Amino acid sequence: MEKPVCRNGVKKDQLLSSVNDDHGGVIVELQEPMDPNVFQNMLKASLSKWRLQGKKGIWIKVPIELVNLVETSVKEGFWYHHAEPHYLMLVYWIPETENTIPANASHRVGIGAIVLNDNRELLVVQENSGRFKGTDVWKIPTGIVDEGEDIFEGAIREVKEETGIDTEFLEVLAFRQTHKALFGKSDLFFICMMRPLSFDIQKQDLEIEAAQWMPIEEYAAQPFVQKHGLFKYIKDLCLAKKERSYPGFTPVPITSFFDASTSFLFFNRDGVDQESSAVHL
Amino acid sequence: MEKPVCRNGVKKDQLLSSVNDDHGGVIVELQEPMDPNVFQNMLKASLSKWRLQGKKGIWIKVPIELVNLVETSVKEGFWYHHAEPHYLMLVYWIPETENTIPANASHRVGIGAIVLNDNRELLVVQENSGRFKGTDVWKIPTGIVDEGEDIFEGAIREVKEETGIDTEFLEVLAFRQTHKALFGKSDLFFICMMRPLSFDIQKQDLEIEAAQWMPIEEYAAQPFVQKHGLFKYIKDLCLAKKERSYPGFTPVPITSFFDASTSFLFFNRDGVDQESSAVHL
Repeated sequence: MEKPVCRNGVKKDQLLSSVNDDHGGVIVELQEPMDPNVFQNMLKASLSKWRLQGKKGIWIKVPIELVNLVETSVKEGFWYHHAEPHYLMLVYWIPETENTIPANASHRVGIGAIVLNDNRELLVVQENSGRFKGTDVWKIPTGIVDEGEDIFEGAIREVKEETGIDTEFLEVLAFRQTHKALFGKSDLFFICMMRPLSFDIQKQDLEIEAAQWMPIEEYAAQPFVQKHGLFKYIKDLCLAKKERSYPGFTPVPITSFFDASTSFLFFNRDGVDQESSAVHL
Repeated sequence: MEKPVCRNGVKKDQLLSSVNDDHGGVIVELQEPMDPNVFQNMLKASLSKWRLQGKKGIWIKVPIELVNLVETSVKEGFWYHHAEPHYLMLVYWIPETENTIPANASHRVGIGAIVLNDNRELLVVQENSGRFKGTDVWKIPTGIVDEGEDIFEGAIREVKEETGIDTEFLEVLAFRQTHKALFGKSDLFFICMMRPLSFDIQKQDLEIEAAQWMPIEEYAAQPFVQKHGLFKYIKDLCLAKKERSYPGFTPVPITSFFDASTSFLFFNRDGVDQESSAVHL
């Protein structure tokens, strides 16, 4: 917090310590406990200053330990932007114009793993929790990609966790976008082609009822697979990849212009490489 | 709220009204204002009951109008799960075992639109806010997909908003996954191939400094495009699509087995269709 400024013997309201963001706003990260009334006076004084300065979006990050300051912030007009287990982010928009506050994360990301061995057998599981519990449906291993985890890492991890099988990631064959999933958020589900590096199944007990290598034909013959759009397409993609060279997307590392960090671009490499040699700008 | 139960003249603590979820937990949706002390007693009594019942995850959804009940919930051991502008979701895990509470949404989803006309000209913009402000870089229109919006809808909307050009979505040529973007969340960016349906540019003033149709060769000759991984690949993909049949992913509607809702699976349709006729199970 900034030190109080005294003029003519009158102690001025203290201001909240803040940093500017890149969009004409400021960010306050509360760290020290304080009395809600003291906080309220500081917040009012700070808002007056930011208003005069022409600031736009005002962000306050409140760690869960300082939950007693949340009510005060809301009373002063702040609303919730997002929350993680250990903090709540509140936001306020000063200008009269429509706010351009960026949206919160909107999607969860899941993977389904097609793992085929050389005997045309597919790695499949039966789940003992969730919506497939008790259905006797054999399905490919699926799971949610962790925050900060690459799609290919998530696919390798989930297959290992559920079945004990080590795999190499080959490519993304397809993806599905759905809406109004968990908590009203959207969902992106990537169907990944994997090559098995081991073959002895060691199933996980918590979520997996059974796991096995199953001939593709047997998987495809399940009534559920024949009826259900996604399961039917998974079978089609599996065969398209196995029988011919279905063109999926493979990850290629690229470097960010802004901060030199590395991320992955997924695309059909052959489709671009063939082109490169044929085209001359 | 449930009615109080009286036995032997002793008024028992009231319990919070709740519904069971599909995973052995319960969900409380607070709706009516109440005194924090009354709420605390009801919460303590309810937790005791749920503990005896062997419940697992306990969810409390607190509308922002009832912000005065958040501190009480945290005092009783709840933590934040997620927040949207009008509510905060708190959660608590009763069993001694590790919690299996589902993760919050982890990704924002963006699009970049490749719009090519029949004269080998690419629709490009200069931005007047954000990281490209003042760089003189001509780039393809980009934007964030709204919550609940399909990728192809978002691409059509952003191109229209930024340039006034109407387009038809053709396919996804590539996607990039990055981490530690806004608020530490991850980001999925889909590069979309679009066909222009109109040609007169009407640029948006708020975010766009300038917009034009630019010969691909001129776009590709920009030093920024030649250096920066993503921009170089966008140029390569653009040419691969224009000159030959680069195999992107197109959306096909599929129906959910569980609730008959429709979503879209993006994949290479030709790659599967060719296969279907060749393979006999």
